[in-house]
Amino acid sequence: MPNRAIPDATVARLPVYLRALLELAEGGEMTVSSEDLANLAGVNAAKVRKDLSYLGSYGTRGVGYDVEYLLYQITRELGLTQDWHTAIVGIGNLGRALASYKGFSERGFRIAALFDVDEKVIGEEVGGLIVRHLDELKDIVTDDRIAIGIVATPPQNAQEVAERLVDAGVKSILNFAPAVVNVAPDVNVRKVDLSIELQILSFHLQRTQAIASAREANRQLGG
Amino acid sequence: MPNRAIPDATVARLPVYLRALLELAEGGEMTVSSEDLANLAGVNAAKVRKDLSYLGSYGTRGVGYDVEYLLYQITRELGLTQDWHTAIVGIGNLGRALASYKGFSERGFRIAALFDVDEKVIGEEVGGLIVRHLDELKDIVTDDRIAIGIVATPPQNAQEVAERLVDAGVKSILNFAPAVVNVAPDVNVRKVDLSIELQILSFHLQRTQAIASAREANRQLGG
Repeated sequence: MPNRAIPDATVARLPVYLRALLELAEGGEMTVSSEDLANLAGVNAAKVRKDLSYLGSYGTRGVGYDVEYLLYQITRELGLTQDWHTAIVGIGNLGRALASYKGFSERGFRIAALFDVDEKVIGEEVGGLIVRHLDELKDIVTDDRIAIGIVATPPQNAQEVAERLVDAGVKSILNFAPAVVNVAPDVNVRKVDLSIELQILSFHLQRTQAIASAREANRQLGG
Repeated sequence: MPNRAIPDATVARLPVYLRALLELAEGGEMTVSSEDLANLAGVNAAKVRKDLSYLGSYGTRGVGYDVEYLLYQITRELGLTQDWHTAIVGIGNLGRALASYKGFSERGFRIAALFDVDEKVIGEEVGGLIVRHLDELKDIVTDDRIAIGIVATPPQNAQEVAERLVDAGVKSILNFAPAVVNVAPDVNVRKVDLSIELQILSFHLQRTQAIASAREANRQLGG
């Protein structure tokens, strides 16, 4: 299974399907058509069918996909059947919010350690964990088998923190800091830009306003 | 311009191109090929060319796209040439982090008001703004021309807060709470799932581990 090539764009859509399927399962739905799943995920039905075919899932004509089985397949494919131990570096407001974000543990990401360099924060309990000094990173990554590091520092510290994570043996980094981080090519860095969804809202807002303005102009012209 | 139909999937990629172009511009690049832009955005070059053609941008053979002009076109298309007044409801850790998140103001989202219902938080200054009671929402939305509402409450309060935003006249909602929100169809709601990028990291982590295990098994077999 690890050798089958799934396109990156498909991998990026699997969490979106997963979220939609969880909502369907909570609502008691047993099956879902590719059209309905496509609507929930915001893509077209042909793409859903193509994406799911990479998982060996083809659905049944006239019935659709079995929700529970598809959930199982996507969860397994994404590696969410195991818990990934995750550390957060930078325990400011964002780090605190992430430390208690329920969406992480629900998906199998167990926040196992918190780090900062501010003496006022070190030793404090946040979300049931004691904040440790960043100098303890290497030991704790080894002892607690930390696989993923989340960078929630100010932008100017992101690069250094990423390097320290890599030096400690962490090969997967999620960067929340609005800064670009450069690391070795075998390290997987993903960047979260919290403004992307706002930009999509803005696109639609602008359209709505432009249409309203055009209607108003037309009305004033007595059209 | 507002009547041209740009597919939703293209709209969703425009912020990703924008981010890549801003990095190129900061690095002093004047032009970019569709291949390079595709690599930065994590899609294929044919998709980049198709997406940008909706903006009337076709690049120059052998030269590529003009970075500054493309930045201008995408910024205009996304409605980011104007400031959108934005309110945050729920001033816990996440709300505080969002209130001071630099990535919002850089993209034209001006945080203009903060709301909560907790008397211990109301009146406090956060990121230069005084936290107001949610009961003042309607007046402030009108007076400050708030166009976008960000929900950063606990999941159990998200639905009520969304309804109050809509009732106050806000038609664009960004929901950070891990809860589904149902509103009228003319309201645009986008949901941020902070765990999506972690799930993509998990996919790659699992692959790497599976390959390492296979190699180890092979080594032990003397292969």
